[in-house]
Amino acid sequence: MKFSETFIPTLREVPADAVIASHRLMFRAGMLRKLANGLFTYLPLGLRAFRKVENIIREEMDAIGSLEIKPSVVVPGELWMESGRWETMGESMLKVKNRTGAALVISPTAEEAVTAMIRDELFSYKQLPISVYQINTKYRDEIRPRYGVMRGREFTMKDAYSYHSDEKSLDETYRKMEAAYRRIFKRCGLTVIPVRADSGAMGGSGSEEFMVESEIGDNTLILCRSCDYAANVEKAECKPDYEAPAADDQADTLPIERIATPAVKTIAELCAFLKTDAKAFIKTLIYRAVNVEIDLSRAPGCANLRRVKPAPEAPAVYAEAFFAVCIRGDLDVNEVKLAAALKAGEAALASDADVERLTGARVGFAGPVGLASVPVVADESVTALYDAVTGALETDVHYRHAAYGRDFTPWLVTDVRTVKAGDRCPVCGGGLYEKKGNELGHIFKLGYKYTTPMNVRFLDENGKSQTPLMGCYGIGVDRTLASVIEEHHDDAGIAWTMSVAPFHAIIIPVKYEGVIRSVTDTIAAELEKRGVEVLVDDRNERAGVKFNDADLIGVPFRVVVGEKNLSLEKPVVEVKRRGEQDVKLMPADSIASAIAGMVFDELLKLG
Amino acid sequence: MKFSETFIPTLREVPADAVIASHRLMFRAGMLRKLANGLFTYLPLGLRAFRKVENIIREEMDAIGSLEIKPSVVVPGELWMESGRWETMGESMLKVKNRTGAALVISPTAEEAVTAMIRDELFSYKQLPISVYQINTKYRDEIRPRYGVMRGREFTMKDAYSYHSDEKSLDETYRKMEAAYRRIFKRCGLTVIPVRADSGAMGGSGSEEFMVESEIGDNTLILCRSCDYAANVEKAECKPDYEAPAADDQADTLPIERIATPAVKTIAELCAFLKTDAKAFIKTLIYRAVNVEIDLSRAPGCANLRRVKPAPEAPAVYAEAFFAVCIRGDLDVNEVKLAAALKAGEAALASDADVERLTGARVGFAGPVGLASVPVVADESVTALYDAVTGALETDVHYRHAAYGRDFTPWLVTDVRTVKAGDRCPVCGGGLYEKKGNELGHIFKLGYKYTTPMNVRFLDENGKSQTPLMGCYGIGVDRTLASVIEEHHDDAGIAWTMSVAPFHAIIIPVKYEGVIRSVTDTIAAELEKRGVEVLVDDRNERAGVKFNDADLIGVPFRVVVGEKNLSLEKPVVEVKRRGEQDVKLMPADSIASAIAGMVFDELLKLG
Repeated sequence: MKFSETFIPTLREVPADAVIASHRLMFRAGMLRKLANGLFTYLPLGLRAFRKVENIIREEMDAIGSLEIKPSVVVPGELWMESGRWETMGESMLKVKNRTGAALVISPTAEEAVTAMIRDELFSYKQLPISVYQINTKYRDEIRPRYGVMRGREFTMKDAYSYHSDEKSLDETYRKMEAAYRRIFKRCGLTVIPVRADSGAMGGSGSEEFMVESEIGDNTLILCRSCDYAANVEKAECKPDYEAPAADDQADTLPIERIATPAVKTIAELCAFLKTDAKAFIKTLIYRAVNVEIDLSRAPGCANLRRVKPAPEAPAVYAEAFFAVCIRGDLDVNEVKLAAALKAGEAALASDADVERLTGARVGFAGPVGLASVPVVADESVTALYDAVTGALETDVHYRHAAYGRDFTPWLVTDVRTVKAGDRCPVCGGGLYEKKGNELGHIFKLGYKYTTPMNVRFLDENGKSQTPLMGCYGIGVDRTLASVIEEHHDDAGIAWTMSVAPFHAIIIPVKYEGVIRSVTDTIAAELEKRGVEVLVDDRNERAGVKFNDADLIGVPFRVVVGEKNLSLEKPVVEVKRRGEQDVKLMPADSIASAIAGMVFDELLKLG
Repeated sequence: MKFSETFIPTLREVPADAVIASHRLMFRAGMLRKLANGLFTYLPLGLRAFRKVENIIREEMDAIGSLEIKPSVVVPGELWMESGRWETMGESMLKVKNRTGAALVISPTAEEAVTAMIRDELFSYKQLPISVYQINTKYRDEIRPRYGVMRGREFTMKDAYSYHSDEKSLDETYRKMEAAYRRIFKRCGLTVIPVRADSGAMGGSGSEEFMVESEIGDNTLILCRSCDYAANVEKAECKPDYEAPAADDQADTLPIERIATPAVKTIAELCAFLKTDAKAFIKTLIYRAVNVEIDLSRAPGCANLRRVKPAPEAPAVYAEAFFAVCIRGDLDVNEVKLAAALKAGEAALASDADVERLTGARVGFAGPVGLASVPVVADESVTALYDAVTGALETDVHYRHAAYGRDFTPWLVTDVRTVKAGDRCPVCGGGLYEKKGNELGHIFKLGYKYTTPMNVRFLDENGKSQTPLMGCYGIGVDRTLASVIEEHHDDAGIAWTMSVAPFHAIIIPVKYEGVIRSVTDTIAAELEKRGVEVLVDDRNERAGVKFNDADLIGVPFRVVVGEKNLSLEKPVVEVKRRGEQDVKLMPADSIASAIAGMVFDELLKLG
């Protein structure tokens, strides 16, 4: 393809709002333009690279037997009401009523649409397992879209869904997907970190995220220096950094004692006042949780709560419930882990008014001792505290010498702590550290989360009606493309991995005329014959401009055809690999086969 | 691919709402399922065929140098306000406000999105012409979606847009597109009728539609029996079926005379009453037109009308204006031709109240004589009437002996008649006939319709700022696919054209085991090696079931592998071409190369 016949509007200027390399370079290289906040147009060069990523994903999905389908992007709201997500997806889901009054959703994901189709077609266990996928447009109404296609409103996602008659089958497909994801990212030339993840709003019983490290990543990853443990902080665990107290120590604890702590609000102030350490505190925070599935029928303060079903077949939930969450004073509660422990849609700090109503004191004096208005949830760290300071449920009053098990017994003891750099790996005990990451892919075991409320059934081998298990598996296509640029660029521009490069080679004739032109055309034709995708920069521009654009758009092989080199007895051309400094002189008559060989070697190495 | 490893849920039952063959067969063959009214999911078999059509279109677009891009499907409403179509597109455009209050549109078409991008990138005439296209999701809120994907709400369209510095360049691209469209439909095996078309809501100066004949077509086509004239009835013209009156006849006409016509309302009643023919009547109808661009500053009754600009750079229009339209009594006014003549967004019959207000009489007594409240628009047929009956602008009163030019002079004389079967071809005078058709593609010369209001500019060769001309070119991908089925099917099912067939060949082992299985696998592998797409029906079903399904899903070549034929000295298999009766016995060891040869011959013949 000739440069003059395509449309690659390269820019010297960097768009004002572009703070990350991929955003900057996709605009500068003429791959992408903005239509509105979070909405973009891929130009021809960008679309070529986009399709490469798309096809790598498609090939790997096909290879594990997942079947491509194409549901509509606009889907009926009814299906979301059936699953219960019409209410719970929040405002990021774009809903619209059409002129006939029908509720429609611009798909943010397709569990409902695909499950509805499977429901109609599934009769027998013989049809299972089945795995289908689409590569299609999605819309999520990001409140603050930024970083180009890394966090846009409309994007393309590969989303796969599988259905199974038993756990073993779900597990097999889940493992195949995991392996396919590793191959996809390897083929794209991406270094991904697979991490254990919370399954969040998607629900379910197991999930893994495929992350790329990124300064602007919206996820915190917890990684081990000694083994391959990696987890999203939303799910990360650690070895206890305390020991179960010795019986002697416990027996020696003084009786619990009320102390006046006027004008002392923060734990730091309290530490100073009592000349003690935050580790000797039981921090107690009041949380409000919504759509809580855990059974509260015997929990303190919950006698009046009633369960409701958001959809006829969905599990019953408490729309709202409050909890006191205790944790050692130097630690932080992780709200995602808390919500997971409570099987809640979401958990967040309660308002000051709610805190005062429930604890009978100003904010800052909550504590587990004598608290009967809400269930007490204690982080495991609290179980080691036998001589602690905590709020006394009265303004300006604390307790000291409070002992777990003697002075209070939580309703639930669980792990809700936020793991931090410096904590110890739950697997090997090694030191943990943190990274920021962006999620490129996510695989989930959804279990019955959608198949039960949407009433999907099949007859098992004994003719008994059963509900299938389900898995879902997503990859953001645009994000994956942008991440390739993040990982493969330098000051001059993009340095594409061969598998994603919009062109494998660019030929720059110093002037596109006479013998230079004919040699250029011959090399281009020879390359194309061999399946090498080649761009010929036939523009009437200075060589410097062409070199800069070639570096900017990042084509792996650059071939320069100049007059002097052609007038030699054995004519040569200059060849340079993007990202390397060396310029090699190679015979003009064999350059095409040499480059083709190198291109396919590199593709082969990527897998 | 094995039948057991894909997902082709064939049905014996016909969906209740499926009245046309493609709708019925896409469901029965397991290609498509319904998500909601007008919203569908393509299943694997359907998607394979869909992609074939998509790729044929892509190849032909690429071949004429159009560049593929990918704008978002959800686009900012602002752009539609700029073009003026925010108001004029009507309720078929799905609009939504997101949570930040931004107006968004689910693209029904992309003139605005693409023109906005070009506006930002276009500087110099050297960049022109440029032609870009997308193959992307569209949504139009059909009030009564039906006929499956033939008239759905969401659909996939290839839409191309071109920009030019002069008419000659626009004309060149328009001709290239026309040729590409003919190749696309030929390759799909479709018989299309290219017809002259009104450019309708899209505006512009020239347009052609590519129609397929269809009983349920929503277009009426006017075709000539003697030449290749073909036009949408919305645009069709005909030779006059009258002669200019002789001077003598005119001079002999009696003076105009008022006659009482009580209790006479229809033209038929009036004919009976006056013992004359409808051809001697001047039928006069009051029309209301909106967004009228034609200059009315000197038109009768329009002194108080004011022009407004729907967008800053858009042409000024009258939001609403009324017209009296006269036509010979046996003819009908074509509202699309009328709107085109008035350069109006739309023209429709005025309400009874408006008619009475403007004519001073009950409905049925309008006429051009003495009418000053609205401009009179006369169809050309009226110019031959010199002794006619018409309404007298008074209830229960008509005129007779009314003569064009003597008793009334219309404000505008133009062609607004609805051409019918039996009229004479405007080109050769031959007999015209009618067909119903569905539009698969449409090419338009848009002129400045979008580039002016959206303020697109470039510097010409003399450094002068100019507005580019624009063209646009659409093809409905789903409709094209459905039309292939409409044209290629029989009672047993689909009979795919080779180019669109989801598989080229199906192998049916009578039982998939032992030697039959190994021969089946060998033939399949040999076919795949040669690039033939093959489906192996490995299901444990009776041969009859497999044969029926093979016919239903319409695979061009069917190969049956049976035990008896394999036990011969020279083992053979049965081969049948879909749609033919003959079953041939062919040697098992050379069947793959024979079928590959036939497949590629057929593909070659399609172009």
